[in-house]
Amino acid sequence: MTLDSLFKPETVAIIGASNTEGKIGHAIMKNIISSGYRGELYPVNPGSSEILGYKSYGAVKEIGNVVDMAVIAVPAERVLTVAQDCGEAGVRYLVVVTAGFKEIGEKGMKREKDLLSVCQKYNMRLVGPNVVGVMDTHTPLNASFANGFPLEGEIAFISQSGAMLLAILDWSRSVGLGFSRFISMGNKADLNEVDFIWAAAEDVNTKVILCYIEDVADGQRFLRVVREASKRKPVIILKSGTSSAGARAASSHTGALAGSEVAYETAFLQSGVIRAKNMSDLFDLAVAFVNQPIPAGKRVAIVTNSGGPGIIATDSVEEYGMQMARFSKETIERMRKVLPAEANLYNPVDVLGDARTGRYRDSLEAVLEDENTDCVLVLLSPAAVTEPVETSNAMVELQQKYKNKPIFAAYMGGEGLAEGCRILTSSGLPCFTFPETAVKAFSGMVKYSSLHKKLTRDQSPPKFENLDSRSVKATFYDVLRDRRVVLLGFEATQVAEAYGIPVAPVYLAKSAEEAVEIAESLGFPSVLKVASPKIMHKSDVGGVKVGLHDSRQVTEAFHAIMESVTRLMPGTPIYGIEVQKMMPPGNELIIGMVRDVQFGPLLAFGLGGIYVNLLKDASFRLAQGLTKTQIEEMIAETKAYTLIRGYRGSQPSDIGTIIDTIARVGRLALDFPEITEIDLNPIIAYPEGAVVLDVKITVSYGDDL
Amino acid sequence: MTLDSLFKPETVAIIGASNTEGKIGHAIMKNIISSGYRGELYPVNPGSSEILGYKSYGAVKEIGNVVDMAVIAVPAERVLTVAQDCGEAGVRYLVVVTAGFKEIGEKGMKREKDLLSVCQKYNMRLVGPNVVGVMDTHTPLNASFANGFPLEGEIAFISQSGAMLLAILDWSRSVGLGFSRFISMGNKADLNEVDFIWAAAEDVNTKVILCYIEDVADGQRFLRVVREASKRKPVIILKSGTSSAGARAASSHTGALAGSEVAYETAFLQSGVIRAKNMSDLFDLAVAFVNQPIPAGKRVAIVTNSGGPGIIATDSVEEYGMQMARFSKETIERMRKVLPAEANLYNPVDVLGDARTGRYRDSLEAVLEDENTDCVLVLLSPAAVTEPVETSNAMVELQQKYKNKPIFAAYMGGEGLAEGCRILTSSGLPCFTFPETAVKAFSGMVKYSSLHKKLTRDQSPPKFENLDSRSVKATFYDVLRDRRVVLLGFEATQVAEAYGIPVAPVYLAKSAEEAVEIAESLGFPSVLKVASPKIMHKSDVGGVKVGLHDSRQVTEAFHAIMESVTRLMPGTPIYGIEVQKMMPPGNELIIGMVRDVQFGPLLAFGLGGIYVNLLKDASFRLAQGLTKTQIEEMIAETKAYTLIRGYRGSQPSDIGTIIDTIARVGRLALDFPEITEIDLNPIIAYPEGAVVLDVKITVSYGDDL
Repeated sequence: MTLDSLFKPETVAIIGASNTEGKIGHAIMKNIISSGYRGELYPVNPGSSEILGYKSYGAVKEIGNVVDMAVIAVPAERVLTVAQDCGEAGVRYLVVVTAGFKEIGEKGMKREKDLLSVCQKYNMRLVGPNVVGVMDTHTPLNASFANGFPLEGEIAFISQSGAMLLAILDWSRSVGLGFSRFISMGNKADLNEVDFIWAAAEDVNTKVILCYIEDVADGQRFLRVVREASKRKPVIILKSGTSSAGARAASSHTGALAGSEVAYETAFLQSGVIRAKNMSDLFDLAVAFVNQPIPAGKRVAIVTNSGGPGIIATDSVEEYGMQMARFSKETIERMRKVLPAEANLYNPVDVLGDARTGRYRDSLEAVLEDENTDCVLVLLSPAAVTEPVETSNAMVELQQKYKNKPIFAAYMGGEGLAEGCRILTSSGLPCFTFPETAVKAFSGMVKYSSLHKKLTRDQSPPKFENLDSRSVKATFYDVLRDRRVVLLGFEATQVAEAYGIPVAPVYLAKSAEEAVEIAESLGFPSVLKVASPKIMHKSDVGGVKVGLHDSRQVTEAFHAIMESVTRLMPGTPIYGIEVQKMMPPGNELIIGMVRDVQFGPLLAFGLGGIYVNLLKDASFRLAQGLTKTQIEEMIAETKAYTLIRGYRGSQPSDIGTIIDTIARVGRLALDFPEITEIDLNPIIAYPEGAVVLDVKITVSYGDDL
Repeated sequence: MTLDSLFKPETVAIIGASNTEGKIGHAIMKNIISSGYRGELYPVNPGSSEILGYKSYGAVKEIGNVVDMAVIAVPAERVLTVAQDCGEAGVRYLVVVTAGFKEIGEKGMKREKDLLSVCQKYNMRLVGPNVVGVMDTHTPLNASFANGFPLEGEIAFISQSGAMLLAILDWSRSVGLGFSRFISMGNKADLNEVDFIWAAAEDVNTKVILCYIEDVADGQRFLRVVREASKRKPVIILKSGTSSAGARAASSHTGALAGSEVAYETAFLQSGVIRAKNMSDLFDLAVAFVNQPIPAGKRVAIVTNSGGPGIIATDSVEEYGMQMARFSKETIERMRKVLPAEANLYNPVDVLGDARTGRYRDSLEAVLEDENTDCVLVLLSPAAVTEPVETSNAMVELQQKYKNKPIFAAYMGGEGLAEGCRILTSSGLPCFTFPETAVKAFSGMVKYSSLHKKLTRDQSPPKFENLDSRSVKATFYDVLRDRRVVLLGFEATQVAEAYGIPVAPVYLAKSAEEAVEIAESLGFPSVLKVASPKIMHKSDVGGVKVGLHDSRQVTEAFHAIMESVTRLMPGTPIYGIEVQKMMPPGNELIIGMVRDVQFGPLLAFGLGGIYVNLLKDASFRLAQGLTKTQIEEMIAETKAYTLIRGYRGSQPSDIGTIIDTIARVGRLALDFPEITEIDLNPIIAYPEGAVVLDVKITVSYGDDL
């Protein structure tokens, strides 16, 4: 969906247009006119026959032409009627500027729902309600009440906050930054970030997509669509509300490990989105992407006329995960011929404080030609003979010649360097004051390039055979019938087994005799654990006994657990005691799942055992569309990986089984949306195979049960 | 030492002064004159009788007056002679602008050494060589060849890089930032950062001290002096070269944990220095400190006219470790009376998009008066009725009234807000574009305030009795005689015991029979470990056997170790096998020390055992002057602390013994500079007491041995 009739409408109606200054309907009319809109413009206002020189209509249906976009700026209580009129008149897009909907509470929420119903009935798409408007500088069209129109450019800015949009509009004009589109999403009742991101991805005038959002309206669709958008152009998102989101209510280890922001972080990663940490980053990145080519790698060459800034830039290169380029012998020799003897020919190249343009040009060309350089940072500090204007012109020329390598500048100084800086900026060469900003922007480009490569790697998620979903349903039936939310250990084990997860068998014993019987059939040594839906941390209440070597010890342990649990948690329902064969030691890991309300099953992997919450070693991925390669990357991000690939002489663990188990947990969670949390902790990894000692599964059947 | 005759000299001589434009001696003369210097000025140049209107002298001694400061700008080969003349004439301070010293290699290094000797002989203090010069805007004096003079202000800027100083000078004039002093340190042959920081701490015109350094010349003195300076005013340092420092060569776990920058990080922390991460931070912090009061705590109140920026600011408050203020009921009620019904009265206070000055003023005053507020951030986005100028004036008034609470602003927009922003800035209210910058600067102030409280807490390092240094010397004698650098296990144990560190006794057995004898006397179960100066990681070569329950097992283990080690590391010298009683399990910790070349013994604490390098849980402190409270803070920073204070129902460990042990390791390292590294790993902590199972000590006697 390109939303073409929204951004490039041939006909626009302004409902609530007005001749009275200070009215929003007046501001919108004036903005559309002064933006130079070339289509048909129809003010609608039953009280006027002409508005700002345009014939005014009493109602939309009187226009007598297909209306691509109708901007509604009437009082809230009249919006529904007007929308109904628009629907009957066959309007394609509604932009509802009017406030007084979801944001004011219950009454507004009802009004918004009704508005959406009207739109759906007539197959109209809706922007808002409660928006500043929509702008496209290439159409050109300023269908908003903003006080101004952005400079023409190639950045699309999509904002959930109207105030933010107005602030950025004002700021961007003063720093000379151009945009292709400005979109205010308001309450996102219908069209949301996914739609606008995709439309911008399809828009030939947009090179970079910037977003400010406070939430994502439809996580599943976001993952699917934004992933495709990111393949075409960089999508940079500032997501706020990280602090107010609050802690996720979690009963599992995985839930506790995954803070409230992990799902967003992971969703952005998996859909190729660059996440800006704050406003400055958002725009520094935009400036980089819109003008400069994506670097092929992360090797930075620095050319400077002073040592200190060179060192600072080098520090930043390391801090932001970039690399200092190592020049070829030819490059060094080439520079040796043109630079003074005291110059530093290695990276950072120091052309010395008395450098004029020639030294900059020669060394820049040398490092740009070197195939060991992916991008170049030019540092310039004011000295007696510095030639900022000429040096800047030389850089612009070189950029033309070496189009595939980004060049950034940091001009550290004030007035004396301003003209040089202006020359760079107006030719699309980003010029910052301090080197760290440039390096940070570089690193964002490199990150995009690496995400992009991963996205375009064509691979599908692993497929499994013989998944026994009927067995899972049978177990869930018992749980549902008992109105429980936490599966008992042996039930969770059955569910995991049905999906081919390698669990150590566990059986429920109701008596000491039964426990001994099971222990003897499984073989000693045994482990006994209390089975109760109310006990989350069994060890803490003496509910676990390990290393039981014979029937007598099993009998004693059975009674000891019963005694301890009933003493420490009197009245707790105890279903019995679970008996398991004790497994040989190995690397203790955790694999888990917690269902995110937006993005669905979120998988976790890391160091397991009883210290899992202390060590907090975990990486995350969303299950939807997850490939084997992505699971490999997920594992490689953890400290656990250092252990399982063979630590200090120990044999490596069977990573294949770990990958397979993670994938199966994902499959299980996707197949059964009623599962809210899964903990496999610990799963012990051996050189061959792995075995899960404890499975915890939590389900939810909504509030109705 | 206040360096008063340097910064406020009554008499200045310029040696190498010149009438020829383009010459450095000319630029310096002109700068001093045009800066408005009010003292006596003596150009020295045997070829001229008058320079720029001043009588010129053939040599310093002809001046016939005490010269406080002589600026030397003659060619490098003449500097020594001139310095000698200055010494004879009783000059107090030399500022050697001339380059061609240490920075050009061996020849220059020799010249620099000779220059320093001359200065020492005549008790002259030296700035440089290879400097831009020295400036004080309050004297006023611009004794430099810089192209300009800073605006008057209260920030002292001390720079190891001349180019950086020139760049900042240029930049600061264009943004209107004022300074008290600009100091270029050059090669720091004599006076260095410690001297200039202290002088600035003593200077009544300086409120904030900023430093750019690439290294610290004298770490021990830095710790002592800068600590005192920080008690008086904020010292903010940008230390570069973090990347180029490279990895520390380390044979111990502690050494591997402590990256090359840890000692600097710790030294700054312990001396109350705020470390700026980059250039932007350095100046954002300076602007905050120079104009605003230090907040009493970290509770931020936010007043905004739009939601989005409010959320972003709230995110930043969390990100930078600040807190959102929780207003009192009275404050809320007070705002309820003056703000519209839809306004948000809780933090962040949203005065709504149609707010004029009144709403800002009323709510600002309400939150400023609330004792739950420590600092205030005002956010303003451009809307139709926004009054940036009036609102700014109201803020300036309120600041006058509530002098003890800092107020910052983030005006998100361009031209329309510029005048308001200027009003704030010129009254000392920092005004940023984006909220995160303001919050970051706040957090720097809060950090200073917390460091400052810690510094002024009067406490002395713990004292110990009965330290047996003669026993340590006796052990070191054997090591020195054998030309070894790594102590054997039993030797290290003796050294630790002599300093009251609770080590598990360990004895060296040369034969299986001897091992059995020792094991029986210590009691079973036993642990056997190979003793060899060449084996760093004993477990990796089968050099450790644990859980030996009787004499037969000890005998077998003895032979098994010998066999494994000789097979895996043939030819390695083996001194025997160490026998130890096996200790019951407990929390495994590490305490360690690595000697930093600048700052002396650096202590480490964290999770121990064989996974220490995997988990990388460690905090650091420098031993010099370390107090018990600081050790407590050091422990509290680690994950290990979560374990030892009682994790998931287990009993807390004896933290007193841990503190005492860390202090004793520090004492040992301070008393014996020949110790380069110490590892106590693991030290097992119990509810009562703790015991060190393995001690590793490395010594160095320099290159001569």
